[in-house]
Amino acid sequence: MLKIVGLLLAWAASFSSTLDENSTYWQARELLLAQEQTTILGQEQILSSEEKLVNDILMNFKMSEMNTAFGDLNFIPAKNFLVAKMEMEASEVFQIIKLMPKGAALHLHDTAMATVSWIISDISYWENLYMCYTLQNQLLLKFMETPDSSCQWDLMSDVRASYPVPADFDMELLSRLSLITDKPDEAYPDINKVWSSFESTLIALTGMVMYRPAWEVYLYRALEEFKQDNILHVEFRGTLPRLYELNGTELTEEESMAVYETVSLRFLADNPCEYYGTRYIYAPLRRVDNATIWNYVTLAKQLKKRFPNYVAGFDLVGQEDLGLPLKDFLDPLLWLITGEDKVPVFYHAGETNWMGMNTDENLIDALLMNTSRIGHGYAIVKHPEAKALALSKDIPLEVCPISNQVLMLIKDLRNHPVAGLVSEGFPIVISADDPGTWGAVALSHDFYEAFMALGGAKADLRFLKQLAINSVKYSSLDKTASADLMQMWQAKWDEFIATVARKYNKNSKPVIPHVNATFEESNLVEENHM
Amino acid sequence: MLKIVGLLLAWAASFSSTLDENSTYWQARELLLAQEQTTILGQEQILSSEEKLVNDILMNFKMSEMNTAFGDLNFIPAKNFLVAKMEMEASEVFQIIKLMPKGAALHLHDTAMATVSWIISDISYWENLYMCYTLQNQLLLKFMETPDSSCQWDLMSDVRASYPVPADFDMELLSRLSLITDKPDEAYPDINKVWSSFESTLIALTGMVMYRPAWEVYLYRALEEFKQDNILHVEFRGTLPRLYELNGTELTEEESMAVYETVSLRFLADNPCEYYGTRYIYAPLRRVDNATIWNYVTLAKQLKKRFPNYVAGFDLVGQEDLGLPLKDFLDPLLWLITGEDKVPVFYHAGETNWMGMNTDENLIDALLMNTSRIGHGYAIVKHPEAKALALSKDIPLEVCPISNQVLMLIKDLRNHPVAGLVSEGFPIVISADDPGTWGAVALSHDFYEAFMALGGAKADLRFLKQLAINSVKYSSLDKTASADLMQMWQAKWDEFIATVARKYNKNSKPVIPHVNATFEESNLVEENHM
Repeated sequence: MLKIVGLLLAWAASFSSTLDENSTYWQARELLLAQEQTTILGQEQILSSEEKLVNDILMNFKMSEMNTAFGDLNFIPAKNFLVAKMEMEASEVFQIIKLMPKGAALHLHDTAMATVSWIISDISYWENLYMCYTLQNQLLLKFMETPDSSCQWDLMSDVRASYPVPADFDMELLSRLSLITDKPDEAYPDINKVWSSFESTLIALTGMVMYRPAWEVYLYRALEEFKQDNILHVEFRGTLPRLYELNGTELTEEESMAVYETVSLRFLADNPCEYYGTRYIYAPLRRVDNATIWNYVTLAKQLKKRFPNYVAGFDLVGQEDLGLPLKDFLDPLLWLITGEDKVPVFYHAGETNWMGMNTDENLIDALLMNTSRIGHGYAIVKHPEAKALALSKDIPLEVCPISNQVLMLIKDLRNHPVAGLVSEGFPIVISADDPGTWGAVALSHDFYEAFMALGGAKADLRFLKQLAINSVKYSSLDKTASADLMQMWQAKWDEFIATVARKYNKNSKPVIPHVNATFEESNLVEENHM
Repeated sequence: MLKIVGLLLAWAASFSSTLDENSTYWQARELLLAQEQTTILGQEQILSSEEKLVNDILMNFKMSEMNTAFGDLNFIPAKNFLVAKMEMEASEVFQIIKLMPKGAALHLHDTAMATVSWIISDISYWENLYMCYTLQNQLLLKFMETPDSSCQWDLMSDVRASYPVPADFDMELLSRLSLITDKPDEAYPDINKVWSSFESTLIALTGMVMYRPAWEVYLYRALEEFKQDNILHVEFRGTLPRLYELNGTELTEEESMAVYETVSLRFLADNPCEYYGTRYIYAPLRRVDNATIWNYVTLAKQLKKRFPNYVAGFDLVGQEDLGLPLKDFLDPLLWLITGEDKVPVFYHAGETNWMGMNTDENLIDALLMNTSRIGHGYAIVKHPEAKALALSKDIPLEVCPISNQVLMLIKDLRNHPVAGLVSEGFPIVISADDPGTWGAVALSHDFYEAFMALGGAKADLRFLKQLAINSVKYSSLDKTASADLMQMWQAKWDEFIATVARKYNKNSKPVIPHVNATFEESNLVEENHM
């Protein structure tokens, strides 16, 4: 800054004497812009010559996309993901991001991790699945030997067969189990409406996938989807509904947790070179009374003790504006982080566009309660003290751009407040929240939005690399495990760099590919998995 | 910050010993929140006891509105002003803001300052006004003795008379001369479309109001509207189209400027106790070549010399994303700020939601070119060096919230980037840009948006007072004039405080009014003008 001010003074002195000498102006300008470049998240990463080559390839595609969009206004992150997904997937930038090992996925919710169309084509065709609609038009799903009397149950297979075109039934199911629509503005007129539809999808899904055998298949599939998107480690949140058997028997929370862990370990055993591990954040609903919170935190301590490697910590979930603020549960939440058996916390906080209300002030409480990361933290730019405190304690935000857009905090992701934070180098990780709900797969779609909109035109491969590194650095793993994961990620990263360099530039010379070159995705995927 | 960290450590130590002692938690929390309160713009203002009383009244209304909106989601700044205006005007908070002396209006454009419905009901009914539509369906308006051959002119009075219901014609005219509509989403699908409609309204208006006698009436009326909205000083921008007479004679730019000054001085002479003054920023279009810019800056120097008190400085206008960046005009723009006859500049910069493109980098150039204020500066939160430089040079942003919303940079004003800047105390002034275009009157509507959305729930009377003080402080006036204006504003402010205190609380005791109390606007206005 001082250097710049000096140059400015020199420049001011020079142009008052002769106009031709405005080179000092350009110097000052370049210095300012270069200075800004240094603070963009990830800019301290030093790239190897091969990484630089890949960066040239990537940035060439990126600038081509951005310049075209600057002209025709057809900028993908400015449009709702629900209508922009196909276009995004055709982007060369997206294809490279898809190949990239993105490290860890740190902010996800249990029932919305896997592709809903897969759930429909697979689990919903299983035998003994019953469905009914409540008086409030809520779809309920349940596997049962014989239907109970809690609802007017019909066998899903019967209902599907009653449709002249069974595929129509599946389409209807898709709209009940996800927010997918081609007219989001009509379907979801405001934030409460979209949250209400969202929660309704989760209720329906939960009844189906919490059938113990379904959960085993579902969780395995979810992890598979993340692995295929080049994610090595997953930390997901859940309300821990009790798994059940066909005869109605319910497992206890601890028995349920044991199933989760077993599936996760089996998945790891099946993919020892492609995957690192899975952890769980117990995150029950926040819209409850104090007595219930006491039950939650008591269970959290038990779970952490019983599953020390699998249970990462605690959080509270549900639409933050409508739920109770953290400060209302001070006693139990302080107890949770006290004593030898204290549990790490990963609180959602400030997932709101209000300012100065209970929801955004949750940011203060999350930090005071020693949160390890902040879920969303969307409102933190309006809280300079919370921002400074997070920075000094090195607490990152878990940023989920598509979630913020589909759940209607923000329309055009260029206006997302985290864009400013990225320009200042504030620590963030990118995650997907509930990718199944809006048809995203794992993290690539969110990484694309972050790269194009939150980073702006100047963010390059160093930004993406930093996001991956951050995801490892801020995972809940201890130092040793974190170092192991980082090493695994680094090897995949090197592979990725080599693959992209080879693909776009056989001679490894810095030749910029033709902008409209066709991208042979299938070959790339093959090469990456060699 | 250090104090807080100390308290945090104390708190961490205390809760690990006993749970009942969480009072340290509340202390740390309150300290953090109190600390945040101190950085909100205006919080260093010290209120008198009477101001405190008015603050209580105001904040009572504000919190009632915000709490209701938090529940039912019907928050005015979240909705397009084009559909939310009536609701805003019914708000008690708005009514108090309307009474408030708001200081100076520093960012306005010539032809969009006065109410369009007034222009229609008055000037469009004058004799000799002709209209035609170009092949591109652009409405042109012109006063002529006899129509020229440049277009297929019809007398407006004839066209109006040909309508079965003449009022229908006037409604049609309103839609051609403003962006007013009850379906903005349908009418303006994207930012280029809304800008194209916007520029079309300005073209039509310009042809009509640049008729010298019409301009005299129009400008006087515009100043009157600002005065009635309790604005004391106006600095407006214009492209300085040449005024014309009925016989087609065109005045030169200097002759035109002389008319502007004469009208402004006459308005001042008619309102010596209610108004302070008017200044002009010569702001021609930016989408031109270098030779044209040389003509502009040459004229700017001439105008500043000939009208030293009336001409405040120079700027360039037009949709920034589509116009050329400042850096393309380096030679002439540096010449402008060089030498004894240098001219102050007030550049539009960063009125965009792009990041890392030419438009937002205009922020850097505006600052390097010694801009006195930044027009909009919407993108500055993505430019930490530009932000730091503006702060160190004490360069404020001219923030126009409704303009940013109607012209489609942002949908929900709670997401406006300036909310974060307000929380950090960054210097801003609030202005209206083109109030006539969207049916706002002077500044009150924009002040309401700023108070409710950019300040959040915690911004109080001190914020509003600071905005008014800033508008005087950052005006183009020299020290003496600025002090005079400040004195005049202070007297009006004291009057305003007394009026509101008297109105809501006859005994001047801190009684909080009933939230649903009816607000008798007419009485208040009378009292304010006593």
